[in-house]
Amino acid sequence: MSKRALTVTREQNFPDWYQAIVRDGDMAEVSPVRGCMIIKPWGWGVWERIQAELDQRIKDTGHENCYFPLFIPMSFIAKEAEHVEGFAKEMAVVTHHRLMNQGGKLVVDPSAKLEEPLIVRPTSETIIGDAFQRWIKSYRDLPLLINQWANVVRWEMRTRLFLRTTEFLWQEGHTAHADKADAMTETLKMLEVYREFAEDVLAIPVIAGEKPANERFPGADNTYSIEAMMQDGKALQAGTSHYLGTHFAVAQNIQFQNAQGQLAFCHTTSWGVSTRLIGGLIMTHGDDDGLRLPPKIAPRQIVIVPMLRDKPEDATLLEYCGAIEKQLKAAGIRTLVDVKPTKSAEKRWNWVRRGAPILVEVGPRDAVGGNVTFMRRDALRDGDKVVTHTLSREAFVAEAPALLVAIQAQLFAEAKARLDGNIVTNIKTFDELAAYFGAAEADDEGGAFKGWAKVDWSRPEGIKLEEIADRLKALKLTIRNAPQAQEPVTGACLFTGDPAKEQVLIARAY
Amino acid sequence: MSKRALTVTREQNFPDWYQAIVRDGDMAEVSPVRGCMIIKPWGWGVWERIQAELDQRIKDTGHENCYFPLFIPMSFIAKEAEHVEGFAKEMAVVTHHRLMNQGGKLVVDPSAKLEEPLIVRPTSETIIGDAFQRWIKSYRDLPLLINQWANVVRWEMRTRLFLRTTEFLWQEGHTAHADKADAMTETLKMLEVYREFAEDVLAIPVIAGEKPANERFPGADNTYSIEAMMQDGKALQAGTSHYLGTHFAVAQNIQFQNAQGQLAFCHTTSWGVSTRLIGGLIMTHGDDDGLRLPPKIAPRQIVIVPMLRDKPEDATLLEYCGAIEKQLKAAGIRTLVDVKPTKSAEKRWNWVRRGAPILVEVGPRDAVGGNVTFMRRDALRDGDKVVTHTLSREAFVAEAPALLVAIQAQLFAEAKARLDGNIVTNIKTFDELAAYFGAAEADDEGGAFKGWAKVDWSRPEGIKLEEIADRLKALKLTIRNAPQAQEPVTGACLFTGDPAKEQVLIARAY
Repeated sequence: MSKRALTVTREQNFPDWYQAIVRDGDMAEVSPVRGCMIIKPWGWGVWERIQAELDQRIKDTGHENCYFPLFIPMSFIAKEAEHVEGFAKEMAVVTHHRLMNQGGKLVVDPSAKLEEPLIVRPTSETIIGDAFQRWIKSYRDLPLLINQWANVVRWEMRTRLFLRTTEFLWQEGHTAHADKADAMTETLKMLEVYREFAEDVLAIPVIAGEKPANERFPGADNTYSIEAMMQDGKALQAGTSHYLGTHFAVAQNIQFQNAQGQLAFCHTTSWGVSTRLIGGLIMTHGDDDGLRLPPKIAPRQIVIVPMLRDKPEDATLLEYCGAIEKQLKAAGIRTLVDVKPTKSAEKRWNWVRRGAPILVEVGPRDAVGGNVTFMRRDALRDGDKVVTHTLSREAFVAEAPALLVAIQAQLFAEAKARLDGNIVTNIKTFDELAAYFGAAEADDEGGAFKGWAKVDWSRPEGIKLEEIADRLKALKLTIRNAPQAQEPVTGACLFTGDPAKEQVLIARAY
Repeated sequence: MSKRALTVTREQNFPDWYQAIVRDGDMAEVSPVRGCMIIKPWGWGVWERIQAELDQRIKDTGHENCYFPLFIPMSFIAKEAEHVEGFAKEMAVVTHHRLMNQGGKLVVDPSAKLEEPLIVRPTSETIIGDAFQRWIKSYRDLPLLINQWANVVRWEMRTRLFLRTTEFLWQEGHTAHADKADAMTETLKMLEVYREFAEDVLAIPVIAGEKPANERFPGADNTYSIEAMMQDGKALQAGTSHYLGTHFAVAQNIQFQNAQGQLAFCHTTSWGVSTRLIGGLIMTHGDDDGLRLPPKIAPRQIVIVPMLRDKPEDATLLEYCGAIEKQLKAAGIRTLVDVKPTKSAEKRWNWVRRGAPILVEVGPRDAVGGNVTFMRRDALRDGDKVVTHTLSREAFVAEAPALLVAIQAQLFAEAKARLDGNIVTNIKTFDELAAYFGAAEADDEGGAFKGWAKVDWSRPEGIKLEEIADRLKALKLTIRNAPQAQEPVTGACLFTGDPAKEQVLIARAY
């Protein structure tokens, strides 16, 4: 094994490799609060870029941002539970509002018990639906198109940074419409916004499609997702969009007067993506030297490391770096000159692990010669050797925007080739499926790379579907979605033998 | 009384007037969760502008954003309580992590009780200090300059939208330094960032200064604030910056190895502003027609209302409005054409109440004549009459940037004149102070306008100060701060009769 910048490679142990990037790429760390993470500056910078890019798209499609309370009265949750099957009950419950001193010890004050417990929002359909019920009177108020950026809490038993945490950050869109057609248009519009965002900004190729009935959001008539393939072959659900029919509207009395003066229930939707996307970025683009960030989402696109030596020449070097920085910033490139009191070699490898798209190292000779020596993070090595390029300062500044475009395209192309090349389509029986994926590891971790299977099925529902889900579960498999882009199906359903109606993707998943 | 766009005037009832703007200006509303607010799109737009403008300043001064958990283990709070006097105990306590179905009813699952209760963060010194303790090893790691944007919860008994709510949003900066001098420089630097931001962006004139000892943040050696004067004469603390000495560092073992290899405790600071600023905007700039937003903070700076009549000419009108919008946007102006299916007159008054700085109404004659008719929200009326201006389209587009600058300056000038003109400086005795402010209203609301008093005092501490605070409290007064800009004092302390050391501001406050 040749030396790489991480202490563990993908091949050696994929989950450990993931943790190594999260840690050594300065993305996040576990906190003293069970299942909650601390997002560090570099990781937070990525989230800020995700927010900025996606928020613009959400606004451009006519949505307005709001903010709703962190807490939800238990009665709201109870009402939802009555209307919605499969409702999850693991949530953080606030029962008291004061601490007190008891014999020098801080304890919960029993006299400060809340009459009604409050739930820390696991999602906001109920509290937003309550507002919709007050805000919507007439068809003139529709569609109502709302989004919020918020933290939510779901009490998870087994957590992993970014991928599944007790507290996570997300945006949740909630909309109300006059009829099904309009709500369905919205649901699919936002699915497309997610697809375009994932592919064009995060450089993560995805497959958009509809979830089978057993994988729907509780209370949804239709759930759509974008699914991404990680480097271990597993699927990551990277975003979902739900058509909720009139279920929430009926439960919460969200009615409007139509043009004919009659009262009707609204059709609602909801859709969201979360900090989980950062996990997807890592497992899509990372290599054994660390993270590789697509330029559009990198907090700093070009990092300049001056090779300082605590000598008088340092001043010239810093001046030269500052001049390059100024030119790059003028070209709209997020640039940083790293002047921290750390050794240059350490800085180089820190930025490699963090995945800055272009890393410039400026030594005294560069400054004198007017040159720029740089590394492309998407093509760091030739074999084991680190590849550097040298250009005149003018040429580098002139070419930098195009270089960033090329890196973005290269990262997407690599991931796209992986996705396209690893979906098997020749599996016709359940036995073949089991043979292809092999026995699941006991801990659901590691194992040989397996892609996805695209198989024909008859779209069963109810008990038939439950049985299929159970058989798949024994192999640690799930149906991811029925891709929007379908090829004609003519054969029999892999599960039921009935005539097939469509293709679905089957995979192990996060 | 002449007719105005709100149902109540400032003179009639200031608190009701405030609520009317919050409601009719589409800023926020009370939620079904006690003391928590729903921030509506227009109010949220203001907060987004506050975030964008202040975040840039926080980054420009070298700070990095992070994200820390919503929950804080009770043991952390207990440790802080041991070290810090005057520690508030009203906070939301999470005690369970699951609900269950019991006889068809949703209840808290008693078997899902947490071993250690979790506190919903009221502020993050303890959880961030714990990370600092891990992150800081050497003087090379200092200063450590961190900020986060987050929601926090303090269980308030009496709430008012934006001004005091159980959940509110804020940014909290937390920094660690090698010595007192560096930490104090930071503390005052951020105070100055807040002052400049309040005055230059929010157009709220403030007085920056140091809080007396009894008004310090628990655990702070020095607390500084910016104080703004509302239109009812009360003070609003609009931002605070604390030098925490080594108190938190000692409690949490935040140590570093200095250049000589010795271990030393860090000196820390914290500083924050919150959604309360929006309350300050309303009470500084609002008039009896609604809110008036400074252009730099208005989500939309120019709103164009086409006078649609459901006739074929509407198309021409919309085209004309779209052309103006395009030109204004090209000039970097946040512009909206309001095409909602609402009557034009209703739209006009909605935008007046929301406080859009410039409101354009385009009728068929404007479109034909190539003109633009507009209102300036800072100078809406001449007496009772609404004042409109007409310019050619070219002239309006050319002058719009300067108009916005003028409106920003005008709003600041008005508020500055009010602040400067309403600080009395001739009060020398406590009796005079009591006479000036008069008896406090029983409910702390309304009453005649009273400004602030600037008086000489001897900077007493301990019991002497407590006695003074009690005497002031009986008049519903507090010492706001000792302004940074001091005039020489020569007389006696108003409270103690001792030789005066400095001037302090005394006021009723929110």
